Amino acid sequence: MTVRRQVALSRDEALALDGSDPLAGFRERFLPAEAGLIYLDGNSLGRPPRATRDRLLRLVEHEWGERLIRSWDEGWFELPRRIGDLIASACLGAAPGQTIVADSTTVCLYKLISAALDARPGRGEIVTDRHNFPTDRYVVEGLARSRGLGVRWLEEEPEPAAIGELVGERTALVTLSHVSFRSAAIADMAAINERVHAAGALVLWDLCHSAGSIPVALDASGTDLAVGCTYKFLNGGPGAPAFMYAREEHQTALAQPIWGWIGRRDPFEMEQGYVPADGVSALLSGTPGVLGLVAVEEGVKLVAEAGIDAIHEKGRALTALAIELHDAWLAELGFALVTPRDPERRGAHVSVGHARARELSRALIDAGVIPDFRPPDVIRLGLSPLTTSFADVWDGLDALRGIAAAV
Amino acid sequence: MTVRRQVALSRDEALALDGSDPLAGFRERFLPAEAGLIYLDGNSLGRPPRATRDRLLRLVEHEWGERLIRSWDEGWFELPRRIGDLIASACLGAAPGQTIVADSTTVCLYKLISAALDARPGRGEIVTDRHNFPTDRYVVEGLARSRGLGVRWLEEEPEPAAIGELVGERTALVTLSHVSFRSAAIADMAAINERVHAAGALVLWDLCHSAGSIPVALDASGTDLAVGCTYKFLNGGPGAPAFMYAREEHQTALAQPIWGWIGRRDPFEMEQGYVPADGVSALLSGTPGVLGLVAVEEGVKLVAEAGIDAIHEKGRALTALAIELHDAWLAELGFALVTPRDPERRGAHVSVGHARARELSRALIDAGVIPDFRPPDVIRLGLSPLTTSFADVWDGLDALRGIAAAV
Repeated sequence: MTVRRQVALSRDEALALDGSDPLAGFRERFLPAEAGLIYLDGNSLGRPPRATRDRLLRLVEHEWGERLIRSWDEGWFELPRRIGDLIASACLGAAPGQTIVADSTTVCLYKLISAALDARPGRGEIVTDRHNFPTDRYVVEGLARSRGLGVRWLEEEPEPAAIGELVGERTALVTLSHVSFRSAAIADMAAINERVHAAGALVLWDLCHSAGSIPVALDASGTDLAVGCTYKFLNGGPGAPAFMYAREEHQTALAQPIWGWIGRRDPFEMEQGYVPADGVSALLSGTPGVLGLVAVEEGVKLVAEAGIDAIHEKGRALTALAIELHDAWLAELGFALVTPRDPERRGAHVSVGHARARELSRALIDAGVIPDFRPPDVIRLGLSPLTTSFADVWDGLDALRGIAAAV
Repeated sequence: MTVRRQVALSRDEALALDGSDPLAGFRERFLPAEAGLIYLDGNSLGRPPRATRDRLLRLVEHEWGERLIRSWDEGWFELPRRIGDLIASACLGAAPGQTIVADSTTVCLYKLISAALDARPGRGEIVTDRHNFPTDRYVVEGLARSRGLGVRWLEEEPEPAAIGELVGERTALVTLSHVSFRSAAIADMAAINERVHAAGALVLWDLCHSAGSIPVALDASGTDLAVGCTYKFLNGGPGAPAFMYAREEHQTALAQPIWGWIGRRDPFEMEQGYVPADGVSALLSGTPGVLGLVAVEEGVKLVAEAGIDAIHEKGRALTALAIELHDAWLAELGFALVTPRDPERRGAHVSVGHARARELSRALIDAGVIPDFRPPDVIRLGLSPLTTSFADVWDGLDALRGIAAAV
């Protein structure tokens, strides 16, 4: 637990933390934001690595422009699996051959949830979290309606005991977010997996706010399925393709519903009848979007180079500073901390609630500090460890304090 | 009909055609291929416009790098509809508000076919073409299996009379390609639509080989639904996002199955329960992939600037030259023309069959001429009007003649 101090850290002390930050040099590996901007929203959209610009230029001029169609055989077709394996080893705790990059997070959720429901015929319920990210809820609701299934909603935080009470022999699938998009609370993946498996159901984890911010242990925790986006802490770019994880032992039994040529065995033989490709490639459908993929690869390479443990360590320190400044400056101005105080229980953002959060968030943006607002009353401060400094946290919370004191 | 001459056009005559080509200047608007390369595969992967490189740089450095998350509200969210409307007006013959860019062609097919089947409950059959592009067939087969529907296969070319015989009161949907990926034959969209509608069914057209090569009249022909890719004649880049068209009168009744936050009304209110957005935006699911989208926009802008009628005219002349050279040089070497001779019945590629097509295709690539091979026995010569010269056609077929004569 962080010690709650009476007097907040000074700006010089924040600068001293930057001076001893082993990851500080990574900030220079990213393209500059507008001069003076304090960006506390890397958990909505990560910043562009300089290498991404160079890679896109090389892609457009050389691979697409000069080599043209030949580039598909010279590397493009490998990208979904290669980048999947890179993400898996960099931060998911997953052995190769189980992770693949394709489509949007929403389409990935649809494919894997649909496959999971097919794998548990006769079970009529999906369990999910009332406070899960909207697209996760909507995909569940759409599939439940089309198949005549029920949705059981967890109304509180996803604790193992609460999940244990909801699951049973009617449960086909439990789908939850590993790190809450709202509070940054980390769910206990291994303990929840155990409860779900005891009921004979499958589990799917959304890793959007985990991937690249905290270590995940997909293989060791017994996770069945997972999805995640690459445009937050993996810095893959706006709307970058997502990733899917399907545990190796399930791959032959799982059948995703969007049958397309790239997920077929021997696609270029163009034969009659669909036969899924071997392994995780069967999760593919259409032609991979190469511009998006190469940008993801460059983003993930930086995470791999920095190391997820070092990133996690810095994330804990950045969020601890934000919580300390909240306690010293904001608590008396009508704010309430939404994020867990226990550093083992939170990801790399800090959320603070305030009755006028929408208005304060707009004023912060006008003042050159970018958080984001999550309705109805939360300001979310994303502290992406590779691009956020301790001084950014200090300056951002100082600006918020000034604005909140003036309204 | 093209007049069949005994003696083929000379290379100087081909150069003279380039000299009087009103679209010749567009070649300089694209990034250069490798020196000496003859690229006859713009119908698999169109070449990169120079403007695309510049746009991507601006996107990465300014919109993503400097403006960061604010760019979503400063234009990124508009891209799927704005580019859809641009494609619609440039080459689809469709009024605004019916076309949107998102996902892969395969995912778009899945969404629209699924929506069409829901709109024709109680009808147990989908009609499609045995020679349709593989991904189109696989999507149909997957949806038919999951819903317990039958597939009626058209075994010959999709002529209106043949379609008329297959459709009936059991038909929910007919899905066909407008321009055959194999032969470049153009199907009679309006006449087929009439037969399908007479049976009370819906029709979905795949425009992958039409969009940007020949004018399409979606609104005037009474088409219900269409999809198409943007990486061929629209030069949008490898695996670029696809487009969907849903006729305005159907939009409120059609419900696509992949419920996601971007297809919901007021997505950033993040409310409980899915309510589809108004109009064509309801076809969206996940976060739009911005890198892919901006590249599509630059490609389509060039088509709009050149004009689809001028592109079509040049496409007819290029394919006529290829057919003339086939007749003069290749017919006696064991080749057979697969593409229709009537210029009104063909798109912008010419396919030639040969028993050793796979081997000849490889030898052509080694000689610096890029066609593509379509199993079992077709060499496909893509003559993308904005980037292919008459001299390219002459040189490419001359190389093919030399290789075929030597084997």
